Amino acid sequence: MNFCNECGGPILFGPVDGDHAPRHVCTRCGYIHYLNPKIVCGCLAIWHDQVLLCRRAIEPRAGFWTLPAGFMENGETTLEGAVRETREEARADIEVEGLYCLFNIPHINQVYMMFKGTLIAGRHAAGDETLETGLYREDQIPWHDLAFPVVRKTLKHYFEDRITGSFPFRMIDLRHPIP
Amino acid sequence: MNFCNECGGPILFGPVDGDHAPRHVCTRCGYIHYLNPKIVCGCLAIWHDQVLLCRRAIEPRAGFWTLPAGFMENGETTLEGAVRETREEARADIEVEGLYCLFNIPHINQVYMMFKGTLIAGRHAAGDETLETGLYREDQIPWHDLAFPVVRKTLKHYFEDRITGSFPFRMIDLRHPIP
Repeated sequence: MNFCNECGGPILFGPVDGDHAPRHVCTRCGYIHYLNPKIVCGCLAIWHDQVLLCRRAIEPRAGFWTLPAGFMENGETTLEGAVRETREEARADIEVEGLYCLFNIPHINQVYMMFKGTLIAGRHAAGDETLETGLYREDQIPWHDLAFPVVRKTLKHYFEDRITGSFPFRMIDLRHPIP
Repeated sequence: MNFCNECGGPILFGPVDGDHAPRHVCTRCGYIHYLNPKIVCGCLAIWHDQVLLCRRAIEPRAGFWTLPAGFMENGETTLEGAVRETREEARADIEVEGLYCLFNIPHINQVYMMFKGTLIAGRHAAGDETLETGLYREDQIPWHDLAFPVVRKTLKHYFEDRITGSFPFRMIDLRHPIP
């Protein structure tokens, strides 16, 4: 951050009276620019014994497989964001049961929220940011070609939980370096 | 948003190729500035049959009662943010049991995450942004002087759940106008 969004003045990163952390402060108008984590919303869409995966057409991790997910937008709920991203990336509709996994990823300033639900009518197709979509059984998952640790973790929990048929909400911290 | 954080050039709000929504785009360097919801983390701290409340020293809603909560910071988890805010606003430590209520508040672009736990040693005191702190039984809660709908909803759910002794995780949408 080099310039102030408000007045265009130069930004200095430094201490602020009464604050515990240094901030980006405008040297002209004094505006304090806070940087906060972003929410990524997505869906684990189930169709019988299969899960819906997307192969990424864009960086980061182009060519690798992911669950449909993306940055939550202003003006929507976390669920609405997850449903929108699933439509955009996988041309798929989902009947959502609820929030399944929440991941804190502090080294990249992200909070992932993965909802679980049923793919409607088994329909899916590649969206603009996707090379291809597919439905995968557990023994068909491309474990070595998954895009992000958060995808692997969500799938692992799902296949474990499926043994008991109970899918409790989980909060998980993913810290760098990933063990 | 008037000026680009990167180059200081003027920003135009308008359509972007391949995007479903208009964005803030720099007319000089082309940088696209996305605006995303912020996470507010806080704690419902319990001490025997009482809950910990703070009277706000700052706007918005100065003078009204709230649960200790504030904006999540980069580099922390949602739980770390909730614990930090509880220390800052109520000089209180809490043994957290888990996430209790998640509120989507799309008209103000916020997601609230309220954790539930036990106040340690019953200790609390006003922090810099707080006029006073207090422990309140259900029949002592200042219902007409609560700062935000999210505070009322969290307290209502807690006192309802306390009847059964079961405190399930809840996701709640708060939309404007609040009914």
